[in-house]
Amino acid sequence: METAYIMINCEMGAEGAIVDGVKTIDDVKEVSGVFGNYDIIIKVECSDIEDLRDIITRKIRHLDQVKCTTTLMCAN
Amino acid sequence: METAYIMINCEMGAEGAIVDGVKTIDDVKEVSGVFGNYDIIIKVECSDIEDLRDIITRKIRHLDQVKCTTTLMCAN
Amino acid sequence: METAYIMINCEMGAEGAIVDGVKTIDDVKEVSGVFGNYDIIIKVECSDIEDLRDIITRKIRHLDQVKCTTTLMCAN
Amino acid sequence: METAYIMINCEMGAEGAIVDGVKTIDDVKEVSGVFGNYDIIIKVECSDIEDLRDIITRKIRHLDQVKCTTTLMCAN
Amino acid sequence: METAYIMINCEMGAEGAIVDGVKTIDDVKEVSGVFGNYDIIIKVECSDIEDLRDIITRKIRHLDQVKCTTTLMCAN
Amino acid sequence: METAYIMINCEMGAEGAIVDGVKTIDDVKEVSGVFGNYDIIIKVECSDIEDLRDIITRKIRHLDQVKCTTTLMCAN
Amino acid sequence: METAYIMINCEMGAEGAIVDGVKTIDDVKEVSGVFGNYDIIIKVECSDIEDLRDIITRKIRHLDQVKCTTTLMCAN
Amino acid sequence: METAYIMINCEMGAEGAIVDGVKTIDDVKEVSGVFGNYDIIIKVECSDIEDLRDIITRKIRHLDQVKCTTTLMCAN
Repeated sequence: METAYIMINCEMGAEGAIVDGVKTIDDVKEVSGVFGNYDIIIKVECSDIEDLRDIITRKIRHLDQVKCTTTLMCAN
Repeated sequence: METAYIMINCEMGAEGAIVDGVKTIDDVKEVSGVFGNYDIIIKVECSDIEDLRDIITRKIRHLDQVKCTTTLMCAN
Repeated sequence: METAYIMINCEMGAEGAIVDGVKTIDDVKEVSGVFGNYDIIIKVECSDIEDLRDIITRKIRHLDQVKCTTTLMCAN
Repeated sequence: METAYIMINCEMGAEGAIVDGVKTIDDVKEVSGVFGNYDIIIKVECSDIEDLRDIITRKIRHLDQVKCTTTLMCAN
Repeated sequence: METAYIMINCEMGAEGAIVDGVKTIDDVKEVSGVFGNYDIIIKVECSDIEDLRDIITRKIRHLDQVKCTTTLMCAN
Repeated sequence: METAYIMINCEMGAEGAIVDGVKTIDDVKEVSGVFGNYDIIIKVECSDIEDLRDIITRKIRHLDQVKCTTTLMCAN
Repeated sequence: METAYIMINCEMGAEGAIVDGVKTIDDVKEVSGVFGNYDIIIKVECSDIEDLRDIITRKIRHLDQVKCTTTLMCAN
Repeated sequence: METAYIMINCEMGAEGAIVDGVKTIDDVKEVSGVFGNYDIIIKVECSDIEDLRDIITRKIRHLDQVKCTTTLMCAN
């Protein structure tokens, strides 16, 4: 199983809508607004690395009002 | 009591308007334009953590021309 | 309940020992080595904000070979 | 009057000792351990810019176990 | 020969189009979407430093939907 | 005399226009496009700290297509 | 095939020794000292993701005088 | 002529000694302690790119108590 954490910086005030949107994506296991140097954190688990890349590239990065993403691939 | 410092990066030239807007928010104890790697710093004090989150999420991050915020929650 | 994600940068080669050490800390729900701009990610859940601060300040930040930590407090 | 905020990253576990040391420096108005991408925040107020530079360069940056400082000079 | 790596942060979802655009630029030897704290990495090789600057300034930085670039000039 | 270096990140492709604009500002002693993690660097020298703040806040930060500025105040 | 770029910050003056050491690691396709906000860049290509993780975690991060690494996993 | 600005983060309290050391290096045109997210800034001018690389790699980065350097190569 492949796991990654993705931190999002988003348009100000858009956290709630993005968190709601992310919750509807399959394989997203956790999502939360956060305080610090990022606005939202997401945890994704997939059966293989291709699916993981696909979710980040085609789903999370295409969400409206997401400004940038920082990905941490787990070493497991 | 819960305290946090919030650093803002804003649209160029908007510092004055944002500082003025922030001053009208209850529980904001300090606000100043700054030179360095952020544009504005704010200090907020609330009676509990829920109020603190509410001010950051619903008030400061919704101010016009704020591009991003970095929050430092105090350890007190 | 209070939740935080803590990202660690550590001495090179110390990831395994730190991950093992973190796993023995109560209230740590997840820990993983990661690839990206941090080396390790940890998720902590506590009943209140005081316990959360205590774990970060007195336990995680005191682990040997941890160079710096970046904390993301969850919005709820 | 000249004001600056200084954010410190310090050796892990040294926050308490540094906060105590900073409190003894004249013209330091606030100091707190913080969670986020810095470990400690300090507010300094001096009568002129030379005194401000002196406190940062000769006192705060010379404190034991301080790894790096980031200074935000206030715009007025 | 002069070599540089350029890391790009781009508009969300634009990685594919930018990678395709970069591939058409002479002297670009490698280009790939990446996961981490940048979105795309490019390797450029030119016969002299003037050509290298020209490609970065006039071609890569002018690509549509590129938000910012970070350049690493090789020491060779 | 007060001196500061200001690093600018700008809209892609706008470096030339901004460098030309900055050159017309009094007290700007140097300006150059750069490669690295910033796009333009400026050196400003003024007779006092108030003038320095004024140039940064009212002139440089108001230039069209400037996205963000990072200021380094000299310790002299 | 799995590819990653790894950027290294190292002890000052150690670039030459680290570049030499990295060149002896199998699956390292490129390594160069660089100027910018990192000191060395490495490109690694492996047949699968497990090998890639192994090289980064067990070989590159264990090199003497490497202070920190930032990994960019390629999207394909 | 080739020009670069180099920003240094150094051991706390070492700014004065490093500034003095840098002043003795040929082709260094400016050096100053700074407040912000770096500690010292240096400007170097050389007749060609090889000399510039040599000064950064063999002289500045070998100075005692320099922790890391960030280089901005000028666009012309």
